[in-house]
Amino acid sequence: LNRQEIPSPASPAAASSDKKGRLTIGVDLGGTNLRIAAFDPEWNRLAYINLPTRVSEGPDAVVGDMCDAIHRVLEQCPQQLVGVGIGAPGPLELPSGKFHRPPNLPGFDGFLLKDAMESKLQTPVIVEKDANAAALAEWKSGVGKKMPGDSMCMLTLGTGVGAGIVLDRKIWHGMIGMGGEGGHIPLVENGFPCGCGGRGCLEQYASATAICRAATRAAARGGADRIAKLIARRIADQCEFTARDLAGLAREGDEPSRQIFADAGKFLGMGLAMLVNVLNLPLYVIGGGVVSGWDLFAPRMFEELRRLSYIYGLTEPEADQSFTPGKTYIVPAATGPDAGLLGAAMLPYLEAGTL
Amino acid sequence: LNRQEIPSPASPAAASSDKKGRLTIGVDLGGTNLRIAAFDPEWNRLAYINLPTRVSEGPDAVVGDMCDAIHRVLEQCPQQLVGVGIGAPGPLELPSGKFHRPPNLPGFDGFLLKDAMESKLQTPVIVEKDANAAALAEWKSGVGKKMPGDSMCMLTLGTGVGAGIVLDRKIWHGMIGMGGEGGHIPLVENGFPCGCGGRGCLEQYASATAICRAATRAAARGGADRIAKLIARRIADQCEFTARDLAGLAREGDEPSRQIFADAGKFLGMGLAMLVNVLNLPLYVIGGGVVSGWDLFAPRMFEELRRLSYIYGLTEPEADQSFTPGKTYIVPAATGPDAGLLGAAMLPYLEAGTL
Repeated sequence: LNRQEIPSPASPAAASSDKKGRLTIGVDLGGTNLRIAAFDPEWNRLAYINLPTRVSEGPDAVVGDMCDAIHRVLEQCPQQLVGVGIGAPGPLELPSGKFHRPPNLPGFDGFLLKDAMESKLQTPVIVEKDANAAALAEWKSGVGKKMPGDSMCMLTLGTGVGAGIVLDRKIWHGMIGMGGEGGHIPLVENGFPCGCGGRGCLEQYASATAICRAATRAAARGGADRIAKLIARRIADQCEFTARDLAGLAREGDEPSRQIFADAGKFLGMGLAMLVNVLNLPLYVIGGGVVSGWDLFAPRMFEELRRLSYIYGLTEPEADQSFTPGKTYIVPAATGPDAGLLGAAMLPYLEAGTL
Repeated sequence: LNRQEIPSPASPAAASSDKKGRLTIGVDLGGTNLRIAAFDPEWNRLAYINLPTRVSEGPDAVVGDMCDAIHRVLEQCPQQLVGVGIGAPGPLELPSGKFHRPPNLPGFDGFLLKDAMESKLQTPVIVEKDANAAALAEWKSGVGKKMPGDSMCMLTLGTGVGAGIVLDRKIWHGMIGMGGEGGHIPLVENGFPCGCGGRGCLEQYASATAICRAATRAAARGGADRIAKLIARRIADQCEFTARDLAGLAREGDEPSRQIFADAGKFLGMGLAMLVNVLNLPLYVIGGGVVSGWDLFAPRMFEELRRLSYIYGLTEPEADQSFTPGKTYIVPAATGPDAGLLGAAMLPYLEAGTL
């Protein structure tokens, strides 16, 4: 199969009996890894390729790698292609996928991802912000399966804080695709400087990066000896010190570690209060690596949210109750690290209105 | 005309040639005044009634006054009624118009405004949050005429800070009608306590009430003699000291007065940064009494917004340029104090999809 031979995509609107022999391809373009997968219409994974993202070789090389991998996936799978969706890190304009100095993809500033992919693949490609793709996967295949609704918001607490918002069954793009930048809600006046140029953004207080930085600062200040020791051990082992390491210490009862998660929970509660008061959605999903510390940050998060949002107070679900429409649910993600990849694969169906 | 005799409403979907002989009624239910007006389909006002809101007599008396006034308006106007819309202060659930301890309407907690009005009028009534109605008027008949788009947000800086959000040509209600509570964006950790039960809400820093409180505090602290003198004069005259008074002093060069407006601008800029980063809308309109001090608070507001929102930085319109799609506009309201009344009258058309 050479590059000109990709067959015309099948209609995603076909009757479900026709869907059996179909596949859709999702691409997760990350700053470190490039992941490509094919899914059937029930979201079972048919094929998977994981490559390093050759950022230093420039966007054309990365696009070439993506297209080669897509061809390899298509060679492995006999099903008919419905479409290709890509989740990419922001800031990027949509639907063009034009990058605006993306911190995780240096050298991609101004690059038009959709055009580049389509001219190489000769088939339509849908570009989304990675956090929006992850939100889509949670909405249709993760938490949203147990908590169905037309609208939701997902915050992904990883290197940064990404946000994706689904409103009335559509991803909210805003004017130029930059809606849903929930990581850049300014929370603290004259707070930590942020990569976006602002100060005090949520991402500086609730991302995995922020949590590790808080741990390092606590260790440097003194009075957090167990944290200091673990950081030193990780350096000695040439491993990264992670939010998961800190969660381990916190669960063993280390007070400074517990405090750092509680602080992250407080700021997350402030950010959620803003989102609840402005959007009044039924569902907010928290994903990303930090969510492994849910038990450590959630109590303080809910405390702050109750304090700052009377709308949450009016709509808080009772504990241990089954899903009740009209309540505001804030829950950990169910889809895991592949949310963005699966969500990207869902894009052709979303665009056709058949998701 | 007695209460049973309201004729069936005309279809708002009729061809525009049939619209000439039609009217729509808007009601602005405020904590102090009850205003009722009829408008033709070109939004010319045909009749107007202004009454005190008899809050202490309870909701049934107020509903009775509204219905009597609607009948009087209909008696004055020969045109056929299209529908009745009411803008009411929140918090209230929509579409039922169920109040949740509204601070400006004590005694209305739990009252169902839509049911009460419809059973008395025997015609459909649409209830909206007052700030949403004002946003609607600005979108269709105010600033939005010069800056057309499918989405916008309006902040009304008055006694409190109200917010109304139009997304994709619909008022954004969220799950139970409590979307768009932009006045309760938490801005300051452990800031001023707010009527909503939270702390540090935008409304505590950028409303007319907040500005007057800041002035009183400055006067009490000393070093703001002109403010202190003017407050004393207003008390002697048994008048209220208003944000407009403070704007007068600021324009005469009084530094403490100028600083208070600059501070309000800073917090407004923080709130706008959140809204711009989360929603990425093309248009944000600032209305309410405080907007008379636009020249005093806007420079600091834009400064803060630029600092905290890279999305605004990417989309800031060039000065003195005509309206350009793709840019983010932040402008003072054009409709004035009747925005809520006009917006209420627009509701039947909005609901019919013919606005």
